[in-house]
Amino acid sequence: MGPSIIVIGGNAAGMTAASRAKRIDPNLRILILEASRFISYSICGVPYYPSGEVAHHEELIAFTPEQLFEKRGLEARTRVKVEEILPGRRSLRCRELDSRREFYQNFDSLVVSTGYVPKRPEIAGAELSGVFTVSRLEHGISLREAVRRPGVGRAAVVGAGYIGVMMAQTLRRCGLEVSLFERGPQVSPHLDAECAEAVQEELRRNGVELHLKTRVRRLIGESGRLESIAAGDLTLGADLAIVDVGVRPNTELARASGIACGVTGAIEVDDRGQTSLPSVWSAGNCAQTRCLISGRPMVSSLGTTAAKQGRVVGENLAGIRTTYPGALETSIEQVFDLSVARTGLTLGQAGQAGFRADSVTVKAADRAAYWRGSAPLRVTLVFEKGSGRLLGGQIAGRQSAAKRIDTLATALAAGMDLSQLSQLELAYAPPLATLWDPINIAANAGLRRLAGR
Amino acid sequence: MGPSIIVIGGNAAGMTAASRAKRIDPNLRILILEASRFISYSICGVPYYPSGEVAHHEELIAFTPEQLFEKRGLEARTRVKVEEILPGRRSLRCRELDSRREFYQNFDSLVVSTGYVPKRPEIAGAELSGVFTVSRLEHGISLREAVRRPGVGRAAVVGAGYIGVMMAQTLRRCGLEVSLFERGPQVSPHLDAECAEAVQEELRRNGVELHLKTRVRRLIGESGRLESIAAGDLTLGADLAIVDVGVRPNTELARASGIACGVTGAIEVDDRGQTSLPSVWSAGNCAQTRCLISGRPMVSSLGTTAAKQGRVVGENLAGIRTTYPGALETSIEQVFDLSVARTGLTLGQAGQAGFRADSVTVKAADRAAYWRGSAPLRVTLVFEKGSGRLLGGQIAGRQSAAKRIDTLATALAAGMDLSQLSQLELAYAPPLATLWDPINIAANAGLRRLAGR
Repeated sequence: MGPSIIVIGGNAAGMTAASRAKRIDPNLRILILEASRFISYSICGVPYYPSGEVAHHEELIAFTPEQLFEKRGLEARTRVKVEEILPGRRSLRCRELDSRREFYQNFDSLVVSTGYVPKRPEIAGAELSGVFTVSRLEHGISLREAVRRPGVGRAAVVGAGYIGVMMAQTLRRCGLEVSLFERGPQVSPHLDAECAEAVQEELRRNGVELHLKTRVRRLIGESGRLESIAAGDLTLGADLAIVDVGVRPNTELARASGIACGVTGAIEVDDRGQTSLPSVWSAGNCAQTRCLISGRPMVSSLGTTAAKQGRVVGENLAGIRTTYPGALETSIEQVFDLSVARTGLTLGQAGQAGFRADSVTVKAADRAAYWRGSAPLRVTLVFEKGSGRLLGGQIAGRQSAAKRIDTLATALAAGMDLSQLSQLELAYAPPLATLWDPINIAANAGLRRLAGR
Repeated sequence: MGPSIIVIGGNAAGMTAASRAKRIDPNLRILILEASRFISYSICGVPYYPSGEVAHHEELIAFTPEQLFEKRGLEARTRVKVEEILPGRRSLRCRELDSRREFYQNFDSLVVSTGYVPKRPEIAGAELSGVFTVSRLEHGISLREAVRRPGVGRAAVVGAGYIGVMMAQTLRRCGLEVSLFERGPQVSPHLDAECAEAVQEELRRNGVELHLKTRVRRLIGESGRLESIAAGDLTLGADLAIVDVGVRPNTELARASGIACGVTGAIEVDDRGQTSLPSVWSAGNCAQTRCLISGRPMVSSLGTTAAKQGRVVGENLAGIRTTYPGALETSIEQVFDLSVARTGLTLGQAGQAGFRADSVTVKAADRAAYWRGSAPLRVTLVFEKGSGRLLGGQIAGRQSAAKRIDTLATALAAGMDLSQLSQLELAYAPPLATLWDPINIAANAGLRRLAGR
């Protein structure tokens, strides 16, 4: 048998690393250790479970440990927490969470793919029953039970990032009254104002009560159960609250074991995924990477980047030398009938990264204007003044239209400028697109801005 | 007043050239001469008019001559045929088609944007009443009248290119029985076999009777009216027939005036759109361009390329020196509930262009597999053996999914290879996409093929 690899964390990055390594080199012995009850599931699908849009939680699971062994030859153990990495001995001190039994597990190579954890809110009452965070399948299962409890009619969502916006929708789909509270001036801080405004319109149109620039002061309970929420000058009754004040890389274990972390708080890795300790690798939302546009250190919270980093680590574990180039943070969200997407840097992020940046936003038809069902698409392009180099983009439109963001993600990966974007030959047919694609139109608007016309 | 520009042909290329030039330099005097009754309309929308999917033909028209003058300061005359270009005198001999009056019109610069014309079929009976080609708005108007005539129940479509496939659908939507005849082994010669097969399935599923490898021998009439069609060993009754045996650049006028044409039969232009004659420019489906992938001469029949070429000519007319880089022939079609798209070279075209080419096709879910409405997407990548350079791609999927072709068009414009495509960070959310985009999956399949695994 070949060398033994342990993977800590059984989702996007860890599972991809394990699968990829085993596929290339079937002699590798690979064991995945996962602290929760589930491995290999769609974390991004969890918000759709409480409302029943995904009927059974099993649908979210790609492989149980048994299936994983049978189909891919990978071993996995759930409810096992790694309590200490002993790098000198190439060993892990582990605990079975159900039996509380401690055991040691040796490795030749280790992959730390512990992902992220929700930040703890600094809000009194966050420990009350009825207050949830959503970052694991177990949370989705608990929340589905909670929304179906008799008498649950009013929900509060604290924080309007990816998870907060998604959960506000889910709770509306569950038939609840929903108030969404956000300290900042807009929802979705990963978007510039124009696209965030589109999200806000769509949330309001679907009955979400939006409280922007509003600080939640306190979650108020009785007998340990949530009763109301004090936010700004208001106190509102709430039977249920979801808190999303962001996530942070889950690095306690790594830090305690002497693995170096970077300026972002995430585990420092080279472009192959190697940490500061020999034979210890890391990938995913606990590992630091670079922004593909600015070259600056960053940490992603997306499953897509996690999987791509994991793939690179898996290839290197199997002896193929590949590298991960860096992240664009391309993402897409469905907000009721709207889709909204981003890639690269927002105008705000571009400024922070030291670029002399500008942006244009155009609103253009997603299909031929005369086509029934044609709807406006908003396209924002962020670009460097002078050079016209594309730095980022955002798209909002009906149904799946924002998936067109991939064109901008590809243009960013290629280092294109507005002139090149303007001449891209994009596909047209009246029921599906326009003769001049909104991306071409936005690029032309950007070129006029650059030329001062 | 500034110099005077005449544009021959008032659609995609000509209209864009005129509008762009006037926008940059409002002093230019620009006159558009158009032989048909309409200018500035969506030719690509015409096939949707006979079925009533587009209710009024006016919806297809962006500007009447009056609106064009009012909104853009451009003059246009319809039903005027240019009969001769007199380059030495910088003059045109023109004829008003309604009054038959001849007149001369001088120019400082001339743009020839006469587009394409349908090829004449070498089939006996093509002149019968009830036999149509579809390349202009007038044809759509006549056809709408024809399909509504009492007793019209059976239609034949001869040729399964872009127009034939689209018209077969339109006629089905009009409630007719439709037989589609194609000499070649597949529909849509601009697609490789896998995507063409998807089109064929969708046509059949929607009741189009498909006759592949079938030569139409004769259109048979009585008293000058179509009655039946003899194809292969069959003779089928037909009240109406549409003939699509391809198009060719409309260059009679240019040739007769001594403008040089290239190997493709289209007007030879440099990358700014200049013809062999001084002050005479050409753009659109009558002008030769280069394939962006192979560098070989080609002529496009697409409105998108026409408009982009027109824009470059317009900028040069207004004194801004820009160039048109070449065409990818990116196109998308709706075939009932399927969308199918292509860009760059098919495997067949790549071979003809001298590439050592290979291709892979994958079928992967367009949305998370557990999402209701998730459907398979077919992605074909054509690439160069050895280098892995992307040469072309094709996508077929439900609804608008094939618009994802734009990612491949952008990758082609950037000269990407399969490794770069494999690492593209494309957008994911369960209702809209998958963690590994089908394009990433296809690139990985291509890389395995390249590595001989």
